[in-house]
Amino acid sequence: MPRVSQDHLDARRRQILDGSRVCFARYGYEGATVRRLEEATGLSRGAIFHHFRDKESLFLALAEEDAARMADVVAAQGLVQVMRELLSGDSEHPADWLGTRLEVSRRLRTDPEFRARWAERSQQLTLATRQRLLRQREVGNLRDDVDVDVLTSYLELVLEGLVSHLAMGLPADDLGPVLDLVEESVRRHRVRASLES
Amino acid sequence: MPRVSQDHLDARRRQILDGSRVCFARYGYEGATVRRLEEATGLSRGAIFHHFRDKESLFLALAEEDAARMADVVAAQGLVQVMRELLSGDSEHPADWLGTRLEVSRRLRTDPEFRARWAERSQQLTLATRQRLLRQREVGNLRDDVDVDVLTSYLELVLEGLVSHLAMGLPADDLGPVLDLVEESVRRHRVRASLES
Repeated sequence: MPRVSQDHLDARRRQILDGSRVCFARYGYEGATVRRLEEATGLSRGAIFHHFRDKESLFLALAEEDAARMADVVAAQGLVQVMRELLSGDSEHPADWLGTRLEVSRRLRTDPEFRARWAERSQQLTLATRQRLLRQREVGNLRDDVDVDVLTSYLELVLEGLVSHLAMGLPADDLGPVLDLVEESVRRHRVRASLES
Repeated sequence: MPRVSQDHLDARRRQILDGSRVCFARYGYEGATVRRLEEATGLSRGAIFHHFRDKESLFLALAEEDAARMADVVAAQGLVQVMRELLSGDSEHPADWLGTRLEVSRRLRTDPEFRARWAERSQQLTLATRQRLLRQREVGNLRDDVDVDVLTSYLELVLEGLVSHLAMGLPADDLGPVLDLVEESVRRHRVRASLES
């Protein structure tokens, strides 16, 4: 019954990903020992590494999954919405996103080998952002005096700042209006309410 | 001759700060061992710790000095100019700023005690940015439909993103136009060149 078997494999994989996500978020990459991964997933190391070659592959699978989820939100609602969800904790897995994202940022800084492996996977969010902006431009919502690539880089830079800000434990309750400003600055401007006299 | 003696002390202090700045930037906080600090400054540990109580105090003195220097640039030219200098390497100590700033960011993330000590010192840049924006508003260069505190937080968030971006070794040669956009988004808008039809 290959069908059932595949369902079973998928469920196991899911169980490993969900458990280890919490584990990485809590202890960081280095701190997520195999023993802790076993506890968090409720599975033996044999079962875990039957599905993932090693810890790095497991982490990359998680990070990739998060990037895909973020890309979905971007496609539907834009990158600023991703940032709002990071802020508000309203999304399905807000703290998890942040945890994984932080770990990616940290390892990019400190681990050149990881940087190379991640580079292949990190294009998703950029592409989703760029495509969303192109669609917004088509329907006339996007400012048309700045290149879409510049707007994409701009939004990604703000996202990175936000992740870093949250990571440093700085107060974030005043950042809603900042994100409004970010959103407005990529929008097509109707004639301003406060026109020059 | 207290005058000469003070000059001598000041020069020593300068020598220690300059040498250890390079050392911290190169090896990070943990990697900057006392032996390496001796090499980098050309002074014995006795001389170094005659001027600074311990390594942490030395690092905080550096970080504080950088924040003051950044605050000076902010006062004269604004926070976006600080970011441009980080990008271009045009400032007097560009790589050093970045090195110290990165180390501050990293330790804020990982070291709650450092976070507390730094909190007292980190207001300089915020205050300088805020005051600069208030002056710009007075002379009519700043948009007046967004609170100055929001604009300050916005610029600081972008700065944090830029520091993080550079720290991750991501390509930065396309960020000039992004900073133009950031600068423009806090400015008072004259009627746009591309008005709605």
